[in-house]
Amino acid sequence: MTSAQLHSLKKIELVLEGAHRDFATDLLERAGVKGYTVLGGVSGKGSHGLYPSHLMFNEDDVLIMVVVVVPEELVAPILEGLTPFFDQHPGVMFVSDVQVSRLTKFTG
Amino acid sequence: MTSAQLHSLKKIELVLEGAHRDFATDLLERAGVKGYTVLGGVSGKGSHGLYPSHLMFNEDDVLIMVVVVVPEELVAPILEGLTPFFDQHPGVMFVSDVQVSRLTKFTG
Amino acid sequence: MTSAQLHSLKKIELVLEGAHRDFATDLLERAGVKGYTVLGGVSGKGSHGLYPSHLMFNEDDVLIMVVVVVPEELVAPILEGLTPFFDQHPGVMFVSDVQVSRLTKFTG
Repeated sequence: MTSAQLHSLKKIELVLEGAHRDFATDLLERAGVKGYTVLGGVSGKGSHGLYPSHLMFNEDDVLIMVVVVVPEELVAPILEGLTPFFDQHPGVMFVSDVQVSRLTKFTG
Repeated sequence: MTSAQLHSLKKIELVLEGAHRDFATDLLERAGVKGYTVLGGVSGKGSHGLYPSHLMFNEDDVLIMVVVVVPEELVAPILEGLTPFFDQHPGVMFVSDVQVSRLTKFTG
Repeated sequence: MTSAQLHSLKKIELVLEGAHRDFATDLLERAGVKGYTVLGGVSGKGSHGLYPSHLMFNEDDVLIMVVVVVPEELVAPILEGLTPFFDQHPGVMFVSDVQVSRLTKFTG
């Protein structure tokens, strides 16, 4: 395997309350995501959606981080789909570049 | 939402002993970080600060990973602030590029 | 510390069943990795190795995420070494760019 055989995709990481796990994974699957990873035992502190000065995460809250790796064309629809949610609920979403060796795991 | 509406920031990931969580998050907040995510249930193996050949992490240790997303200008002060800590305690810190859709969550 | 003092390395993230932790960390150490971080409490959904249409992860499975930061020249041998494993077992591996301030923690 050489670096040339790596394929560029995008990683989206979501931090949100675990109570909303099904909402998030359902939305991701409807958007065409083929799989996801969920990290539990997450806590944090941050600002709530539209109210940046209001600290909303209690360190005792049970948060999750959902990680998906997707083709670039899915990034915009996923972020668009999640924006109304994050306007109403605490959490954050990050996008970054990632490479994978087996493209069929991540694309339709 | 289009890719053009994504904003480039930096993600800093810290792995350290959970006992030092408050030290790390206090330092991050004093540096101007607006929020952070903490992943628990972390273990690992690595070299201790100044003694690279000495394996320090026991796999049973309770480590945490602290994730923050910050404007680029905060990276150097945060790493500088944490360097004396990581010279004395096991752990690592990584920096990577990340994009976010809502800049106000991450900047002052 | 300035950005110029950051060193570019590669981050490899593996998601696999916790039962295979020792296999993965042994392979990483034999490949020359100096340390690793393991995140527990991971669940997910995805396709199994050679059978992309077969959903293999049960959300109740206990998965782990193994994170290593390595010099670029280790990426190909590590992915090569793990490919037969991921052909047989559920899981994914991602590669991304990362920067570190203390190179001796990650290189031989």
